[in-house]
Amino acid sequence: MTAFRRLTLIGVGLIGGSLARAVRGACREIVGCGRNPEHLRRAVDLGVIDRYTTDAAEAVSGADMVVVAVPLLSMPAVFLAMRDALTPEAVVTDAGSAKGFVITAARSALGSALPRFVPGHPIAGTEKSGVEASFAELFRDHRVVLTPLPETTPEALTRVRALWDLTGAKVVEMDARHHDTVLAATSHLPHMLAYALVDGLARMEEAEVFRYAAGGFRDFTRIAGSDPVMWRDICLANREALLSVLGRFGQHLDHLTGLIVNGDGASLEALFTRVRETRNALGRDLAGKGLEP
Amino acid sequence: MTAFRRLTLIGVGLIGGSLARAVRGACREIVGCGRNPEHLRRAVDLGVIDRYTTDAAEAVSGADMVVVAVPLLSMPAVFLAMRDALTPEAVVTDAGSAKGFVITAARSALGSALPRFVPGHPIAGTEKSGVEASFAELFRDHRVVLTPLPETTPEALTRVRALWDLTGAKVVEMDARHHDTVLAATSHLPHMLAYALVDGLARMEEAEVFRYAAGGFRDFTRIAGSDPVMWRDICLANREALLSVLGRFGQHLDHLTGLIVNGDGASLEALFTRVRETRNALGRDLAGKGLEP
Repeated sequence: MTAFRRLTLIGVGLIGGSLARAVRGACREIVGCGRNPEHLRRAVDLGVIDRYTTDAAEAVSGADMVVVAVPLLSMPAVFLAMRDALTPEAVVTDAGSAKGFVITAARSALGSALPRFVPGHPIAGTEKSGVEASFAELFRDHRVVLTPLPETTPEALTRVRALWDLTGAKVVEMDARHHDTVLAATSHLPHMLAYALVDGLARMEEAEVFRYAAGGFRDFTRIAGSDPVMWRDICLANREALLSVLGRFGQHLDHLTGLIVNGDGASLEALFTRVRETRNALGRDLAGKGLEP
Repeated sequence: MTAFRRLTLIGVGLIGGSLARAVRGACREIVGCGRNPEHLRRAVDLGVIDRYTTDAAEAVSGADMVVVAVPLLSMPAVFLAMRDALTPEAVVTDAGSAKGFVITAARSALGSALPRFVPGHPIAGTEKSGVEASFAELFRDHRVVLTPLPETTPEALTRVRALWDLTGAKVVEMDARHHDTVLAATSHLPHMLAYALVDGLARMEEAEVFRYAAGGFRDFTRIAGSDPVMWRDICLANREALLSVLGRFGQHLDHLTGLIVNGDGASLEALFTRVRETRNALGRDLAGKGLEP
């Protein structure tokens, strides 16, 4: 079954590459676009894409589906570069972690193509990056959030849903602002904590500190190995929501610190018990959905 | 080879149970002691211990090796209860996460047995607790830190080293204060961050927030499922070192937050790049030691 005649990926890294691998059989052709020809050649060698170009306009020409999977701050320029080359039936979507920012960029750059743009975000990833790290199962049983605009046509939405359905993901719709708050809390904030933690440890006089890290620490800091440019862009593009959850986190950490200062064992035990129950309910919830082994 | 005639475990949970399973073949008898007869019977049924008592004095009678693996705040009473029943050749060690606290308790409670006490800490664990979660391989390739006192006899130290060698752990010696600082930074602090994070998310209006948690978040918060009493005791027993690293972490998080407030993309990218290099070097280091898959 050929669901898509020509799928164009702007950005062929972990996300773009994994999407290509997952929907390969449903596309007559997959075209890759990026800035680095060496990376793109590698994607062809790996069988992830059929051909490539470093020119966004050339890449989208003749495509019926375009997926933009580049770091957030690169998106405005990509939208501008491809706008005039989009065919009238082309549907455009993206994979950015901050929908408010992407929507603002799309509104100012996409022009008459705006109704065929469906903002999207696959909530999946690893701390690795690049097409070499991509794999077809990345999105299976993960959520993909779509935040359609008032202008978005039902046909465009249906096409983008169909694309992600092919990956085994669970597609949901959400208000863009709500998405940005939820992602700030569950993804962007934990990354900031891991970055600040590892940064702090690296500066400690006790240079051998990392040698005494047990399993929990390794799990905790794995996300601090994520792509720096992607995370720089998330910080800048979702600044407002991220600062809000950082502020609230600071209050909760101050509260916990106060209990330790006061030696309030009863309140500490009550807090830890409550959190364990929340965490375990989450674990069961995720396990029931096949998201956790 | 029977290295130990009678090994007594005060506390038969994840740590005590896993130690028993690992050294089973080198002990003529393993006696368990705890407060809950039902848990202890379960440990006998699982083949982890040979017999049990809820009386610490009775438990250590005739033992040549005693391991105290109970939450930190229970240790002073355990030391007092067993002191007069220890045989003259009995060696005592513990598995507590805060050595300064344990040493103070031992100095005031162990009397003439003090030279045969070797403070210890196996740096291993999971977010699960109880003897049902115990397994013989828990300590393999993990570090066990011993913090001997000036009074500690070489013979006692040799015996405790021999015990942990049987588990496949890597035994190292360290100053108690240094241990407490390093553990505060690499273990106690990350646990506090995970507790504060999950606590904060649970209070958010966006009640479905947990549904949008991806892999990194699950890894990050897994440790928030750890035993509340154990962690209450760690907060109280390692209070000084923990407050110190919490203060330093706050400074690093404030710095990162300031970069986001200022929209300083260049500094954010530099910070994330530096942290990724540190984290990846850690990953390689651990991989080289067989600690990480």
